[in-house]
Amino acid sequence: MDEPAVGGRVLVASNRGPISFHLDEDGQLSARRGGGGMVSGLLTVASQAELLWVCAALSDADRKAARAAPDGLLELDGPGAGGQSGVRMLDIPPDTFDKAYNGVANSALWFIHHMLYDLPGQPRFGPEFSRDWESFRAYNRAFAAALAAACDGQHRPPRAVVQDYHLTLVPRMLAELQPGIKIAHFSHTPWAPPEYYRVLPDAVAREVLEGILGADHAGFLCQRWADAFADCCAAVLGAEVDRGRGQIRYRGHVTGIGVHALGVEAAGLRDRAAQPDVAARAAELARLAGGRKLIVRVDRTELSKNILRGLAAYRELLISRPQWRGRVMHLAFAYPSRTDLAQYREYAAAVQELAARIEAEFATADWTPLIVQADDDYARSLAGYRVADVLLVNPVRDGMNLVAKEGPIVSDRGCALVLSREAGAAAELGGAALLVNPFDISATAEALHEALSMSDAERARRSARLAAAGAAVPPARWFADQLAALGQK
Amino acid sequence: MDEPAVGGRVLVASNRGPISFHLDEDGQLSARRGGGGMVSGLLTVASQAELLWVCAALSDADRKAARAAPDGLLELDGPGAGGQSGVRMLDIPPDTFDKAYNGVANSALWFIHHMLYDLPGQPRFGPEFSRDWESFRAYNRAFAAALAAACDGQHRPPRAVVQDYHLTLVPRMLAELQPGIKIAHFSHTPWAPPEYYRVLPDAVAREVLEGILGADHAGFLCQRWADAFADCCAAVLGAEVDRGRGQIRYRGHVTGIGVHALGVEAAGLRDRAAQPDVAARAAELARLAGGRKLIVRVDRTELSKNILRGLAAYRELLISRPQWRGRVMHLAFAYPSRTDLAQYREYAAAVQELAARIEAEFATADWTPLIVQADDDYARSLAGYRVADVLLVNPVRDGMNLVAKEGPIVSDRGCALVLSREAGAAAELGGAALLVNPFDISATAEALHEALSMSDAERARRSARLAAAGAAVPPARWFADQLAALGQK
Repeated sequence: MDEPAVGGRVLVASNRGPISFHLDEDGQLSARRGGGGMVSGLLTVASQAELLWVCAALSDADRKAARAAPDGLLELDGPGAGGQSGVRMLDIPPDTFDKAYNGVANSALWFIHHMLYDLPGQPRFGPEFSRDWESFRAYNRAFAAALAAACDGQHRPPRAVVQDYHLTLVPRMLAELQPGIKIAHFSHTPWAPPEYYRVLPDAVAREVLEGILGADHAGFLCQRWADAFADCCAAVLGAEVDRGRGQIRYRGHVTGIGVHALGVEAAGLRDRAAQPDVAARAAELARLAGGRKLIVRVDRTELSKNILRGLAAYRELLISRPQWRGRVMHLAFAYPSRTDLAQYREYAAAVQELAARIEAEFATADWTPLIVQADDDYARSLAGYRVADVLLVNPVRDGMNLVAKEGPIVSDRGCALVLSREAGAAAELGGAALLVNPFDISATAEALHEALSMSDAERARRSARLAAAGAAVPPARWFADQLAALGQK
Repeated sequence: MDEPAVGGRVLVASNRGPISFHLDEDGQLSARRGGGGMVSGLLTVASQAELLWVCAALSDADRKAARAAPDGLLELDGPGAGGQSGVRMLDIPPDTFDKAYNGVANSALWFIHHMLYDLPGQPRFGPEFSRDWESFRAYNRAFAAALAAACDGQHRPPRAVVQDYHLTLVPRMLAELQPGIKIAHFSHTPWAPPEYYRVLPDAVAREVLEGILGADHAGFLCQRWADAFADCCAAVLGAEVDRGRGQIRYRGHVTGIGVHALGVEAAGLRDRAAQPDVAARAAELARLAGGRKLIVRVDRTELSKNILRGLAAYRELLISRPQWRGRVMHLAFAYPSRTDLAQYREYAAAVQELAARIEAEFATADWTPLIVQADDDYARSLAGYRVADVLLVNPVRDGMNLVAKEGPIVSDRGCALVLSREAGAAAELGGAALLVNPFDISATAEALHEALSMSDAERARRSARLAAAGAAVPPARWFADQLAALGQK
């Protein structure tokens, strides 16, 4: 694959940036590079272009660093940095940030797009939400203003690539502040169908769509989410959708719609998975399994990840296919997430409770049917990928799901993938995975049985196809494609 | 309006029939005619046609009556009965009935179409649901067999009109048993969008759609539900949808899609509302209000009816528009529903809790802001309609909602209607009602304020339009239209 050509000044905006700061015991600030494929991918681009990354300060240390930076610009070091690139961290007032991030983005917008509400009782949009919404606007305005300021003195208007549901209002705000700038927005979440999207307060529902339609290009992880967005624009705004050309026209402005399936930078991930810390953990897991087949899952304990039904399906496997008792083990890495919210704590407790019930029901003197690990350990997650016979990825709804792509890439002997059809990744991996309806315990149990029963040759063949599909669009390519879409307009 | 012409033998199938039986203290069976507009409407038709109504025995008394009936045929008496018409009550085994009715129809199908699930945890389709589903099939087969048997010896094939989500499998089963019979199915619920409908187990999702597509005509309460059904047929079955002609083609068979907006038989309802028992209660309610404006709601305490958000909106009204304190009273008739289920009991308890909180927060020595009545009293409900200044109907999702149509028809001085846009009735009443997003407490409170502030003339004008729209398609016409649609094929 050709290295993507970028060139010119590029602005990136995302809530979380590529670096974070920490205060040492002696009060000194130290910087840390963020992990994750997107950061690495974008920094590859940074080596070829002048890149300014605008993000929010997420901690007191971040705020201190932001205030101390000359001209507010933080340097990036390490691979991919250098030249004119830098990071601008926005010191948004903590109360504003909290209401925007927790009150709107991670509660309302996340819940809407993942269809997580218990609708008879939640949500209740009232005055508190209205105040949160004002903060969400202010938070988005801060990003738009910083991006607009970065255009000053540029002889050629830069291109701006705005990330995710936190910043849905930015494209329109930025276009108003800086006419002529080319803007892309990318949604990393699913998009809700109109019948669910319209749960949002009417003005909010409009403003979110109008915000994204301020961009010249709106990107999604799969066709399904792009279609749902277009359906919402037609139903809520009465926008004109041209599905053939992939365009939405609204108030005289045309936004191109694109599907950019973010994948994995395979070589880098394989290098990391070959490190001694991972190898040691892989050996430990293999010892634990003692020759039994391993079903592995790796998730945050997010309401959308469906860990409870995954455990219920494993239990059903042990009941309906008793030949697997004593011959299989399920490793569930279920890392903490949003533990500040009661609903998430209750969910995590229900996971532990069901795990204990399965243990009590099936464990024998020489067989532990299930191990749930809640302490986050990246090296162990990679080790889990390496030794898994079956990878279980069964979200109720998921923008993409990178676990489904990463697992097969680093698998030692090839793994079978049981994958929810409600994950965006199903569009690319569906042919080689075993797709399941994530609400159907019986069907998921049967898919686990089929995966466990697969011949080594079949499993290896499918795993190779999964790995190839998962690596097809590495982050650098994904990002360059969005920039190219802006250029083509 | 012309009296609808019917003629020929007509079969009706519904879970609940037009009569029910009770055992007197001395063990004698007595029959009681069912209330409700649909029963009256269909019995009007019965006077012109030979009508056989197939329904389920719902109690021990019903079962005893069904077994004792000559040829299993029960007579209808009272207005509209006579001639060759009769009722066949099916004595379905109680366990089969319970699994079909509670396990499938009122849990899974009702929850899907009203989008009532808390999806991160519910539903979990496993072996228990599979067993319930077998019972649902058996229950539907019993209806199909009884309908097919009723065709024997008929020189001209009768027409069958099958009611609601309990009996979705009947049309296809009946068409297979009795080729040539003309079948209509009618859905009294909303229909779920494909993204929510596909939560059902795959085989179940297909079977429900295929069941209805066994009919020659499929009827819905508004265009929105008809469109959602067509969307599901296209997405799940790959059926060919011709929206222009309102037809769906699947496996060589064509099903016509129709919208039949069930309304109220106004003269009968007004007669009932003028009876002394209603008048006495209306006087009592007026005395209670003491000249204050009355906001009235009348609902079963169903998860879809949104009573909690209604109370929250009333509370918000008292906060954001304090001028109404002491000048308004809210009467919430919230009758028991499905009290066998914990989720419904908890919801009813939450209603009482919020009501007590509002009482504690706002009540004064001479003002009771809110009265919640949980004991079912039909005459008092009609009295509530008569005296209401504002009728609040705010379901999260509702097939039609007849309260919204009945209230204005019997209102003494005209009432303003605050109506959820998620009710099917919004399609017909939207022009004269104040439509609200039922998830938005602030918007609902503002609509209540607007309704309370409306001039008498404006309110009377709107109420008259609402009453006319609500009476436009009385049950007899609604039923005749479905029969006519079968004839036209």
